[in-house]
Amino acid sequence: MRLGELAERLGCRLEGDGGLEIRAVRGLEDAGPRDLSLVAHERYLSCLQTSAAGAVILPESWPAVDRPALRTPNPILVFARALRLLHPFPAPAPGIHPTAVVAPDARVAPDASVGPLTVVGPGVEVGAGTMLDAHVTVGAGVRIGKDCRIFPQVVLRDGVWLGERVIVHSGAVLGADGFGFARDGQCYVKIPQIGRVVIEDDVEIGANVAIDRATLGETRIGRGTKIDNLVHIAHNVRVGPDTLILGQVGIAGSSHIGSRVTLAGQVGVVDHVEIGDDVIVGSQAGVSKDIPAGSVVLGSPAVPHGEFKRRMAVVARLPEMRKLVRALEERLASLEARLGK
Amino acid sequence: MRLGELAERLGCRLEGDGGLEIRAVRGLEDAGPRDLSLVAHERYLSCLQTSAAGAVILPESWPAVDRPALRTPNPILVFARALRLLHPFPAPAPGIHPTAVVAPDARVAPDASVGPLTVVGPGVEVGAGTMLDAHVTVGAGVRIGKDCRIFPQVVLRDGVWLGERVIVHSGAVLGADGFGFARDGQCYVKIPQIGRVVIEDDVEIGANVAIDRATLGETRIGRGTKIDNLVHIAHNVRVGPDTLILGQVGIAGSSHIGSRVTLAGQVGVVDHVEIGDDVIVGSQAGVSKDIPAGSVVLGSPAVPHGEFKRRMAVVARLPEMRKLVRALEERLASLEARLGK
Amino acid sequence: MRLGELAERLGCRLEGDGGLEIRAVRGLEDAGPRDLSLVAHERYLSCLQTSAAGAVILPESWPAVDRPALRTPNPILVFARALRLLHPFPAPAPGIHPTAVVAPDARVAPDASVGPLTVVGPGVEVGAGTMLDAHVTVGAGVRIGKDCRIFPQVVLRDGVWLGERVIVHSGAVLGADGFGFARDGQCYVKIPQIGRVVIEDDVEIGANVAIDRATLGETRIGRGTKIDNLVHIAHNVRVGPDTLILGQVGIAGSSHIGSRVTLAGQVGVVDHVEIGDDVIVGSQAGVSKDIPAGSVVLGSPAVPHGEFKRRMAVVARLPEMRKLVRALEERLASLEARLGK
Repeated sequence: MRLGELAERLGCRLEGDGGLEIRAVRGLEDAGPRDLSLVAHERYLSCLQTSAAGAVILPESWPAVDRPALRTPNPILVFARALRLLHPFPAPAPGIHPTAVVAPDARVAPDASVGPLTVVGPGVEVGAGTMLDAHVTVGAGVRIGKDCRIFPQVVLRDGVWLGERVIVHSGAVLGADGFGFARDGQCYVKIPQIGRVVIEDDVEIGANVAIDRATLGETRIGRGTKIDNLVHIAHNVRVGPDTLILGQVGIAGSSHIGSRVTLAGQVGVVDHVEIGDDVIVGSQAGVSKDIPAGSVVLGSPAVPHGEFKRRMAVVARLPEMRKLVRALEERLASLEARLGK
Repeated sequence: MRLGELAERLGCRLEGDGGLEIRAVRGLEDAGPRDLSLVAHERYLSCLQTSAAGAVILPESWPAVDRPALRTPNPILVFARALRLLHPFPAPAPGIHPTAVVAPDARVAPDASVGPLTVVGPGVEVGAGTMLDAHVTVGAGVRIGKDCRIFPQVVLRDGVWLGERVIVHSGAVLGADGFGFARDGQCYVKIPQIGRVVIEDDVEIGANVAIDRATLGETRIGRGTKIDNLVHIAHNVRVGPDTLILGQVGIAGSSHIGSRVTLAGQVGVVDHVEIGDDVIVGSQAGVSKDIPAGSVVLGSPAVPHGEFKRRMAVVARLPEMRKLVRALEERLASLEARLGK
Repeated sequence: MRLGELAERLGCRLEGDGGLEIRAVRGLEDAGPRDLSLVAHERYLSCLQTSAAGAVILPESWPAVDRPALRTPNPILVFARALRLLHPFPAPAPGIHPTAVVAPDARVAPDASVGPLTVVGPGVEVGAGTMLDAHVTVGAGVRIGKDCRIFPQVVLRDGVWLGERVIVHSGAVLGADGFGFARDGQCYVKIPQIGRVVIEDDVEIGANVAIDRATLGETRIGRGTKIDNLVHIAHNVRVGPDTLILGQVGIAGSSHIGSRVTLAGQVGVVDHVEIGDDVIVGSQAGVSKDIPAGSVVLGSPAVPHGEFKRRMAVVARLPEMRKLVRALEERLASLEARLGK
């Protein structure tokens, strides 16, 4: 594709030779004269000088560079779209692989793709354009919307619902039983988990994630929310739209996470708490009570960002403070001795 | 089922119309006039007034309500049993699915169920009433007792033993090699892991859990213990009976966990420690040494609950204490100046 | 095998009867008169007295024992090798199982083994002596070197490269999309992830691990590095050779880990940091900035080991220090009162 056409389709201002033929998007170090690259942070501008990249995506306001450029106020977004244009996801062959095991009453859209050795249970609906890759297990009554991509070895247990354009990566398990037990003396008796999991449109779910079905009712992940690898989401959790949940986060039962929240890596959230909209929780923090909308919290147990920084600053100087206190005690004792007690 | 019959089968005291027909168990918000619901905490009593639930499970001692009730000293337990009665787990069809790959010498009970595309290795024994769902891999010499439920995409590696009524959720891996290496200069040489994993009766294991085989001997999970999602249990760990291990807990090699212990979410336990019976470890805590029976510990490294609370209280007031120390220093310096040093 | 032959093949000094027939390696408690056992720590020497083990591997310098022994300066290494000799991994039958689904253009070495219901995509290369167990999914263009062991239910997504003698345990997912999104107003737009994953020779990867493909370029794990269960390695991470990554560690995008590093259990590493060679990071620590080579760090956020110990010592005595400060204030106030302010 010519750079001029790229500029037009990506909505960028073209700088330099629009006739340049672009074949791929590559990092600055690996790019050659037919590649488009990206400089989104000033610290990488120096790398551009030694890069062989034929053209580059650049913030609108930056100074001129020595080669053709696509100028935009949002270089990362243009980068994402350029990747999609120049490296489209290979469309899987439509139809059901002969080794797949599909229940007679499952309704699979004609242009959907069901991979080798995939199992589709009774009453399942698979929408148009959706790909079920190899070794996927789809339980009874699951509904999958249009244009979803379900990668190898995903498990969708009975009754799970996925919206449209949902992506689920390998090893993710949706709809396993929630962790609920009643005490009977010293033993635990299982509370049957008969609720469901609902995944709204445009959600992406990482590898080896576990999202449990609700005890009653539903566990729900809101539209556009993105979930990284190895995340644990317990029964009856609700997550709002456009939220980011990073690697290895754990959210215990019945907690509610708002919209546009960020939970950084390895965060833990106890059960039955409410995290408001636009909250940011720092990595490894432990949320043990409700967090008001718009807060930034850190630490385990999590406290507001400013409070955490103040405490950490004092903790860092604790050994020094301890010495000071001891010196004060000596000076005081010496004063007391002089004055007679 | 009529409410009166339910009361009898659940061992509850019936309050109100026993002829009421009950069709399902539902949460207070979703329940209708043919549904049974639960109020186990006083804070939900107000929700009952606006609920359309036909009947409710209630603690024995609470005041009268405006509709039929099942009275019991243990409402959660009755709730669990009512769910089981009214929403029985669908019995899988007995027999071996034609697409399953079963070794000729495997002994599968006639009424056991082996799902589509499941692999059962040589020398395996599968007990009566046990379900192996789709895409399960059962290695050579595995023994599975009666009435187990093994969900899709579980891996039981060679030589793993499961007792009776064991539940293993999707993505769990039992019997992968423990993480053991010998140093040879700067390299690591694998120590072959030839022990086994033993899961006693009535254990439940969550999605994407990993329980490693022992180097020599066995890794053992005690009767009735319940393990949540994404838990890591290393080689030669022993866990006692009736213990709860919550989401994303990690237990390093050769550690022993007692009976009736609770390890809350994201707890880490280092190798070769002993956690006594009835211990409670708070979420995200890091256990780095033995914990005596009956303790409650928190923090990383974990310390007794009271100690942790005291420290946290002081830490929270550290910035204030720091100001006080500085003020004391000034006052002292001014005294010293007045008195001549 | 006779003990004398074992001594020779393991390069040990034989002490006692070399004609003793050894059948297995067993732990001290379980070993019988035909078993070889190990005492590597002095605290287990007392267990040797009550053990029925026929022979024992012992450090070169320890005092004489009451039975035949294999003497060596590195008992753990000899133990590893003895296990390999006496308990060899059962060689899987070479060839492709009839239920496997192998693309016509995949090149599988004649003596490689492809297990039941395994899927091998187009353009794949599988080296000599390599085992793909049951239910493995191998995406298009994957290259697997010689003598690898890929256990059941591993996913190798498109374009992943494995070197020689790589071991991947069940449930591991290599090459899922990295977690990369561009903001478009309040929504997140997926950044296509078109890079690869490269695993060098002699790497071992635990159960349910997730190693993401790079956005561009590669995610790379260095030769001889060992990765425990449930570890999360994000896109564009590079890990050097001979590094140990323990259970449930998470490494965020583009971070670089050096050679001979140890990341203990549940460690978190933020994105874009550099951890130098020979660094040790203590369990549950949170690495939020570069760590110079040779350091030992602890805590969240991680600080040098000595600093952490000093802080912890002061924190442990904080309640006491708080009392002291209050007492000082009182004594000072009383002095001030006497002297008139």
